[in-house]
Amino acid sequence: MLKVRVLSFNSIDMKKLIVLLGLFGMSLAAWAQTLTSPNGKLVMDFHLAEGNVPVYSLTYKGKEVIKESRMGFLIRPSYEFDKNFRIIETKEDVSDTTWNPVWGQNCVVRDYHKELFVALQQENTGWQFNIRFRLFDDGLGFRYEFPVQKELRHFTLNEEVTEFCLSGNHKAFWIPADYDTNEFQITTSKLAEVPQLIDEARNEALACKSPSPNLAVQTPLMLKSDDGLYINIHEAALVNYPAMHLNLDAKTFRMSAHLTPDKNGVKGFIQTGSHTPWRTVVVSDDARDILASNLIANLNEPCKLEDTSWIKPVKYVGVWWEYFIGGGSTWAYTDTQDIVIGETDYSKLKANGHHGANTAHVKEYIDFADEHGFDAVLVEGWNEGWEDNYAYAKEYIYSFTKAYPDFDVAELQRYAAEKGVKIIMHHETTSSVVDYERQMHDAFRFMNRYGYDAVKTGYVGPIIPRSEHHDGQWMVNHYNRVAETAAKYKIMVNSHEAVRPTGLCRTYPNWIAQESARGTEFESFNGIRPDHQTILPFTRLMGGPMDYTPGIFEGDLSVYGNNKAKLGTTLVKQLALYVTMYSPLQMAADLYQNYEKHLDAFQFIKDVAVDWDNTYILEAEPGDYITIARKAKGKNEWFVGGITDENAREACIDFSFLPKGKKYQAIVYADGKKAHWKTNPKDYVISTRKVSSKTILKQRLAPSGGVAISIREI
Amino acid sequence: MLKVRVLSFNSIDMKKLIVLLGLFGMSLAAWAQTLTSPNGKLVMDFHLAEGNVPVYSLTYKGKEVIKESRMGFLIRPSYEFDKNFRIIETKEDVSDTTWNPVWGQNCVVRDYHKELFVALQQENTGWQFNIRFRLFDDGLGFRYEFPVQKELRHFTLNEEVTEFCLSGNHKAFWIPADYDTNEFQITTSKLAEVPQLIDEARNEALACKSPSPNLAVQTPLMLKSDDGLYINIHEAALVNYPAMHLNLDAKTFRMSAHLTPDKNGVKGFIQTGSHTPWRTVVVSDDARDILASNLIANLNEPCKLEDTSWIKPVKYVGVWWEYFIGGGSTWAYTDTQDIVIGETDYSKLKANGHHGANTAHVKEYIDFADEHGFDAVLVEGWNEGWEDNYAYAKEYIYSFTKAYPDFDVAELQRYAAEKGVKIIMHHETTSSVVDYERQMHDAFRFMNRYGYDAVKTGYVGPIIPRSEHHDGQWMVNHYNRVAETAAKYKIMVNSHEAVRPTGLCRTYPNWIAQESARGTEFESFNGIRPDHQTILPFTRLMGGPMDYTPGIFEGDLSVYGNNKAKLGTTLVKQLALYVTMYSPLQMAADLYQNYEKHLDAFQFIKDVAVDWDNTYILEAEPGDYITIARKAKGKNEWFVGGITDENAREACIDFSFLPKGKKYQAIVYADGKKAHWKTNPKDYVISTRKVSSKTILKQRLAPSGGVAISIREI
Repeated sequence: MLKVRVLSFNSIDMKKLIVLLGLFGMSLAAWAQTLTSPNGKLVMDFHLAEGNVPVYSLTYKGKEVIKESRMGFLIRPSYEFDKNFRIIETKEDVSDTTWNPVWGQNCVVRDYHKELFVALQQENTGWQFNIRFRLFDDGLGFRYEFPVQKELRHFTLNEEVTEFCLSGNHKAFWIPADYDTNEFQITTSKLAEVPQLIDEARNEALACKSPSPNLAVQTPLMLKSDDGLYINIHEAALVNYPAMHLNLDAKTFRMSAHLTPDKNGVKGFIQTGSHTPWRTVVVSDDARDILASNLIANLNEPCKLEDTSWIKPVKYVGVWWEYFIGGGSTWAYTDTQDIVIGETDYSKLKANGHHGANTAHVKEYIDFADEHGFDAVLVEGWNEGWEDNYAYAKEYIYSFTKAYPDFDVAELQRYAAEKGVKIIMHHETTSSVVDYERQMHDAFRFMNRYGYDAVKTGYVGPIIPRSEHHDGQWMVNHYNRVAETAAKYKIMVNSHEAVRPTGLCRTYPNWIAQESARGTEFESFNGIRPDHQTILPFTRLMGGPMDYTPGIFEGDLSVYGNNKAKLGTTLVKQLALYVTMYSPLQMAADLYQNYEKHLDAFQFIKDVAVDWDNTYILEAEPGDYITIARKAKGKNEWFVGGITDENAREACIDFSFLPKGKKYQAIVYADGKKAHWKTNPKDYVISTRKVSSKTILKQRLAPSGGVAISIREI
Repeated sequence: MLKVRVLSFNSIDMKKLIVLLGLFGMSLAAWAQTLTSPNGKLVMDFHLAEGNVPVYSLTYKGKEVIKESRMGFLIRPSYEFDKNFRIIETKEDVSDTTWNPVWGQNCVVRDYHKELFVALQQENTGWQFNIRFRLFDDGLGFRYEFPVQKELRHFTLNEEVTEFCLSGNHKAFWIPADYDTNEFQITTSKLAEVPQLIDEARNEALACKSPSPNLAVQTPLMLKSDDGLYINIHEAALVNYPAMHLNLDAKTFRMSAHLTPDKNGVKGFIQTGSHTPWRTVVVSDDARDILASNLIANLNEPCKLEDTSWIKPVKYVGVWWEYFIGGGSTWAYTDTQDIVIGETDYSKLKANGHHGANTAHVKEYIDFADEHGFDAVLVEGWNEGWEDNYAYAKEYIYSFTKAYPDFDVAELQRYAAEKGVKIIMHHETTSSVVDYERQMHDAFRFMNRYGYDAVKTGYVGPIIPRSEHHDGQWMVNHYNRVAETAAKYKIMVNSHEAVRPTGLCRTYPNWIAQESARGTEFESFNGIRPDHQTILPFTRLMGGPMDYTPGIFEGDLSVYGNNKAKLGTTLVKQLALYVTMYSPLQMAADLYQNYEKHLDAFQFIKDVAVDWDNTYILEAEPGDYITIARKAKGKNEWFVGGITDENAREACIDFSFLPKGKKYQAIVYADGKKAHWKTNPKDYVISTRKVSSKTILKQRLAPSGGVAISIREI
């Protein structure tokens, strides 16, 4: 007997359905559940297909976004938990609320969605899972929930079978699926071309790679259909579950979940009474809606921290870029590599004479931060262990509480406090995560004692425990644990080389930024393509802010020595990134000496806000260009950033985001006439003009160039 | 050119060698290095054999113990670090010292050995390792040392190639090599018979097994040659290295090191500036010398703890055996298994009514301990999580700081303190070691707060991190870390299911005992053979004391319900084990009600000491019988224990260990005439007699019976 417990139905469709069920004595299972977005543009269908297989589909203005796609799981060792279901309950709900992020692109976020909850029971086993769908005006989210049940408590996953069956051979902005890194160049191609391009895409020397054995790409995946739909697939609220990659069938365009395994092949350890992350599909026929979407944040849990007063957006400089440019500065204090943490007495070792994190040099940066109004100075290489930092097998690799002899923690605390500047702590773990977890509480207590309120964490190299990958369930739990634990110590976290974010910064707003993509450091290695920054906001940034570390003014690294790398942008594009690459944590990454040579351009970085009341996506096309305007939080100041790929273009900046009837002074930082990222990146022009809400500015951007504008009320 | 740096030569042989070298311009490499034990009985030879392969051999009174056997390593991925060496330095030394253990079988231990140090360099790579040999009167120890060197800093091991080439088809007392358990029945057979017996030996339902893929057995391995030599192979001071099993070639009797791998196949992560554990070969033609040997303790580092005043041998009872007998008592507080640590509110769950660790029941044991002079009460099942304790995949499985609602920590602290009884903490981890390490400091602080000074740790089930085995390098480091960390909190440790000990309790005497073998709990499962306790002192106990938990008086478990298990000994043999199974931690494991039925026999357990001034091995033959006398530490009290295997025998107890010229009263606890472990285990006779140093007592022991004697000056 089918047991239908109908608890609440809010939509008319469902009421009709109930009536029909009553009239004909039919099972709910035979009926499709349909959910329509508040604005009516999106329609989601769920039903049990042949074999009582749960399937869903999604349309946007009648166009197929996701064709009929399967749902469920494969359980170890080889059980199919994706068929033979019956529906035992459905519920619909609608919710329209707003919330205020601690920091963000907007000070108010609306969460308006309809919800469909479906409880399923497998006929042969009696095992259950539920699916919860939420349909917003800009997309769909759904997750699986495993209720507490008598016959199923613990199980392990072979795979999640969730499919995203696409309607055609879309253009895709993708990086290859990899269990340990997300720092690849982004490839733009048709889906059908992925098989022939993926080997080249994988062919990069990264610190730790574990390519997926089959054809798969990472999320957030940005797609554009031939009929003009922009589709973004990702996930939200990744907690106690592995990160999802997407398998691709390059002939049928069926994509499907590919969970990150551990090294034993287990993809997830599940205890019932839990749920998966949300699978998200953001969709629109206007690319700007993708960037403006709050769907992923809305699917995350509200802030769990009672007191958030100590969380402050940060603009910072640091002892950092000097390690990448080939100028001789090192993280390591000595050239002796035979280091044993806890045994080696550094006071007896010979200093190498080019250790970056020395007290005097850090003071120079504190002075610079103080003079130019930066909040903080990041210092990498302050602690014992860096001599042996490429020893990827080494479990006891750093101390997080012992500074090098030439880094005077107490004196720097005093000096920085006197200047009102914070020092940002650095915890590179070289992925010896078990040992970081051992030291973590002591490390955070050390930070509290010496006045640090933010830490940059790092996970270079293969993970220890050696069964784990960067993107697997165990590491996902680790990153979340660090954020949660840090919050107890009132410490903000900026994690590098971690799994890509999924909006958890809403829940833990002290998790102020992540790297989790190819950032500026690659300008000093293999390079970054000119279209990179026009894609990142559509991919990596969908999950949360990135510590991209822009602001490189001296793009020709050969000036320092043997590094022949050249920056992939104009200088002005570097300025524009402070607006187009949203983050509450922004670095001015270059050597301070380079800023002193261009103080006029540097003024934009000094002025630009890092927290916002409102954001206006003015122009956007993934891979081509982005123009964004933002209003500074609590101030009558606006900033505009526009960037382009390798092609010059004319940005059309409509100032209608400004309040009407007032006049404003705009300082425009523009590429010079001869500017070109390759040949003449430093050609820039700064001009001042009056603007109003009626102004429309047509501004030429050089190849891989940009425009940056600061605006104040007159 | 061969570079010979001769720093010190203490033996005449070496001086002669130098003269010869000078005369003929010959290389040291061509010459054997010979070391002779202080008593002249043992001779060790080391030289470079064909291919410049380092080899050693050992003789005892001219008989071959170890034939020419290789030394060295195989390095990953596939490099042979065991040939093409030259000797770059040799040194000899001699040392004769004594030390006083914090607790032990004797209050003074002599360490008299000769040492040979050989520095080797591989010709083709320039890589170096050294070998340090120590030859004692009762055996050989050697270890490899990896000096800090320019071209080699980190490497990983495929295998250690150390061989122990035996002279013949010895009788062996063995358990199969397994990376996760050592709780097998012990098999006695000829080496040549191991291949046909090993499958049966492995065929036991143990909580977590990972059998070695090739023919191999565990150490300590006890051997007896046809010509009457007793040989014991084990290791000492296992630190930052995997435990060694022994491969067996059952035709040539060549045994070789088989290091425990991690699940990726890596056997060890080595950084130069380190060394391996000592490989030990204890040898004699008198089996008693094996039991009397201090070789393994002598090869361990001296005590690292400055203050050891808080370390006290312990005799204890506990809420423990009731969980094994099938009487209904459970570790779990409730029958609800859907437990989430940190989320589940136990105060809202229904108690199952048969939870052992409830306040009232623990008080009964405290009362019993108080009345009968026991130091402590072990309580298992006091903390949150036991409902789900077979969920071997569950990482967050217990809280070590949250007691069940019916276990009143503060009240029990008060009550126990009032009676002068300690409660022993229990930390079963179910091998979720990463999570135990996270909680460990808080758990130890909790113990300090509530007056606990000892913890029993447990490692049932497969290890998390999931790359690791119980006996691998990572877990070895964990066990050592727990002992070292506990010492900082002045906590004694009794670890169960850990890697078998290697004498580290000398260095960390707070590591007061381990299980690491088949203990009394198996009397309630698959059984324990009558010869088991006559073998354990020759095998498992060579590395350190065992928490064997003897003292079962009611051996017929069917009295409690459905458990049909029967004890494999007589009651008197259970008494004798308190003397024959040395440990500073001894449990009276049975239900206290069973002791109340036999208070006359129980008197021996109440009287017997747990720390000793002197130990006298009176009779011993592995697999057959053991008779030991010991003098209580600081008291004129002596205790004798004698046990036999399945065969009845007449023990010959020579009281010459007693000081001469005085008279003593002995209480003799003997098997009754009809006693038999199978049919009549409780038949015992207690008699009192006068003895002196001239007394020789011939005492009949029943099949799997024993004799226990307490002696006081009159």
